[in-house]
Amino acid sequence: MSSLRDAETFPAHTPAASQIFTTVLCHGPITRLEVARRAGLSPAAVTKAVRPLIEAGYLVEEAEEQTRPALGRPANPVRVDGSRALFVGVKVTGDEIIAVLTNLCCRIRAARHAPLPGREAEDVLARVADLVAELRTEAEKSGTPVLGLGVAVSGDVDRAAGVVRWSPFLEWRDIPLAGLLQKATGLPVTVDNDVRALTVAEQWFGAGVGLSDFAVVTVGAGIGCGLVVHGRVVAGAHGVAGEIGHVTVDPAGPPCHCGNRGCVEAIAGDAAILRRIRDTTGAEVAGVPEAVALAHAGDPVARDTYARAGEAIGRGIATVANLLGPERVIISGEGLAAYDLFAEQIRDAFAAAAFGSAARCDVKTRPLPFEEWARGAAATAIQSFIRADDQPPSR
Amino acid sequence: MSSLRDAETFPAHTPAASQIFTTVLCHGPITRLEVARRAGLSPAAVTKAVRPLIEAGYLVEEAEEQTRPALGRPANPVRVDGSRALFVGVKVTGDEIIAVLTNLCCRIRAARHAPLPGREAEDVLARVADLVAELRTEAEKSGTPVLGLGVAVSGDVDRAAGVVRWSPFLEWRDIPLAGLLQKATGLPVTVDNDVRALTVAEQWFGAGVGLSDFAVVTVGAGIGCGLVVHGRVVAGAHGVAGEIGHVTVDPAGPPCHCGNRGCVEAIAGDAAILRRIRDTTGAEVAGVPEAVALAHAGDPVARDTYARAGEAIGRGIATVANLLGPERVIISGEGLAAYDLFAEQIRDAFAAAAFGSAARCDVKTRPLPFEEWARGAAATAIQSFIRADDQPPSR
Ligand SMILES: [Zn+2]
Ligand SMILES: [Zn+2]
Repeated sequence: MSSLRDAETFPAHTPAASQIFTTVLCHGPITRLEVARRAGLSPAAVTKAVRPLIEAGYLVEEAEEQTRPALGRPANPVRVDGSRALFVGVKVTGDEIIAVLTNLCCRIRAARHAPLPGREAEDVLARVADLVAELRTEAEKSGTPVLGLGVAVSGDVDRAAGVVRWSPFLEWRDIPLAGLLQKATGLPVTVDNDVRALTVAEQWFGAGVGLSDFAVVTVGAGIGCGLVVHGRVVAGAHGVAGEIGHVTVDPAGPPCHCGNRGCVEAIAGDAAILRRIRDTTGAEVAGVPEAVALAHAGDPVARDTYARAGEAIGRGIATVANLLGPERVIISGEGLAAYDLFAEQIRDAFAAAAFGSAARCDVKTRPLPFEEWARGAAATAIQSFIRADDQPPSR
Repeated sequence: MSSLRDAETFPAHTPAASQIFTTVLCHGPITRLEVARRAGLSPAAVTKAVRPLIEAGYLVEEAEEQTRPALGRPANPVRVDGSRALFVGVKVTGDEIIAVLTNLCCRIRAARHAPLPGREAEDVLARVADLVAELRTEAEKSGTPVLGLGVAVSGDVDRAAGVVRWSPFLEWRDIPLAGLLQKATGLPVTVDNDVRALTVAEQWFGAGVGLSDFAVVTVGAGIGCGLVVHGRVVAGAHGVAGEIGHVTVDPAGPPCHCGNRGCVEAIAGDAAILRRIRDTTGAEVAGVPEAVALAHAGDPVARDTYARAGEAIGRGIATVANLLGPERVIISGEGLAAYDLFAEQIRDAFAAAAFGSAARCDVKTRPLPFEEWARGAAATAIQSFIRADDQPPSR
């Protein structure tokens, strides 16, 4: 296992150079002139910063026809060479560990799943290290270096300190995850909240590219929300942000694990949906697939339960829109499997509760295979690699 | 009346110079070294930027003992000379125009009130121009130039374009207020939403100084909210943001003018409070002072109505805290006159609905004389003056 001393450093040593590389990564192939315009820098500064990045193999010149061959400045578009470096992203859920190997453009190259070996941090860490080792063996075949590891965990995660403050699913408190995994793998490690990691992936490589203000709402076991405001992911002064799941929809509604009643999650989270169908019908409903099947078969209670869930989610999204006025809200998460059962209610409740022109916010869905959560973790590792000299991006 | 050509320009021609001046304005008296630390710039850059600002009279050296006389860099703290320039701030309400003359440090030097002469934009503009002229006559006595005019209006205001898109109280649609007033007064004009203007004043001169994430919640006729995230005021992609007044507290609650039920404003706004006391008791309650008096006299309906209002406001603040995790929430507005009637309920409802460590957010109150709204408008004019070469600060 290599040590941190061997870690390759990125040849962009100023915030401006990081910003230039990020612009090419998100928008490339792109001309230097367009990079300069988007980044608010001079074309000369861009040309100068691009040169060492091409020399080190991170950027490549597109071999297109020279559109303005007479000019002194190279006019060919540049793009990131995704194959230049690899990263590992890991998502730890309540029952599984998912690890992906991505290239520098965050494209998944390989994936591994393993059951969670209990919740003891030590056991989980050992299993994560195993998966990382497997993926690095995979990477060695291509001769491409693995330059970073990102780990995403639900709950209160302090990215700057590399510590999981509190993860309810894992029952972890104050686990210095980044340091422990750095020791175990020899890689630079970034840990972040899972929804924020997914939001970084959307901001850099997904439906948030080019937007300064947007939200990602995840639907499934929990109802989460990642927020980008003024071009940066919101982390919260005390580690809490984006808790759309605990926006109150109905103060007389069902109790929530947070201690309140009628939160979005207490109506629209998987457990809440299953509980209501079981309690109302008395039927044995083993899990979400059975609940969805019941609704698809026309069961009125199951259908009504999903309709209420959609209404709660739509109200939650409207609250985000009324407070922050994002350009776009991206609905995602494994709960989208049931989307046909509540899409209309989400739309209607959002339209009814959005205030004035906040209703013009573009609400869209994006199916999200579960591996995307691990890809989000890889995105945070890529972000840390590029921004090594920059301030932490989350605050 | 002078023309725009005579307008004095500010001797800080780069974003960094604006930032240096702003740092001294918010934190001064302050040493150059401390300015450099706060602004993330080199001490040499600060020393260089400070010189022309001292020469032009905007900054002054504090005549304290030289603490490190041996160093080449001047060690004396610098501060802004508030008396160097004056600004006018105007708040237009549904029945009154309030105008203040402030110095460069946003200290109020004179104030004028005038009744609203109907709602026709033309009439309102003429009255605003009169008040501005009166305050400029006042300014001439001191020989200090008036360098900008800020106007604050409730509703959907596009600061960058200088247009009031929609103001419900005034029934204005798409009024190009900045251009019209610039023509009428010869001053550079900034128009902004009133709550956002107040938030700028808090960020630069009030309880938000030094915080990158905080909220101002205004209580009164409406329930408003100004948000600062990542150091900048949130304006919303479509002009709507901070609509805490339309966060749903109870979907079965009283109807709101926005078309929904049980919004914070439909429970805690002045009109909602008066309506509930009148409808429940049958008593003639002429206005807010009578309602407050009734509650202070022990009337159970009036007391309960204020208690419910406090609960609604506390829930709204918790929603802001759960989504954004601000360091501080500043409660203000004319509704604070009744604060003793609902302070406890605000605190309790906030504590109950805040998720996890979001409850650590510092919720505080700040009494706010009505002229403070006009002072907020002056703060936006000062901001525009300093940041003339910068991007618009509101997006
Ligand atoms: Zn809850
Ligand atoms: Zn409303």
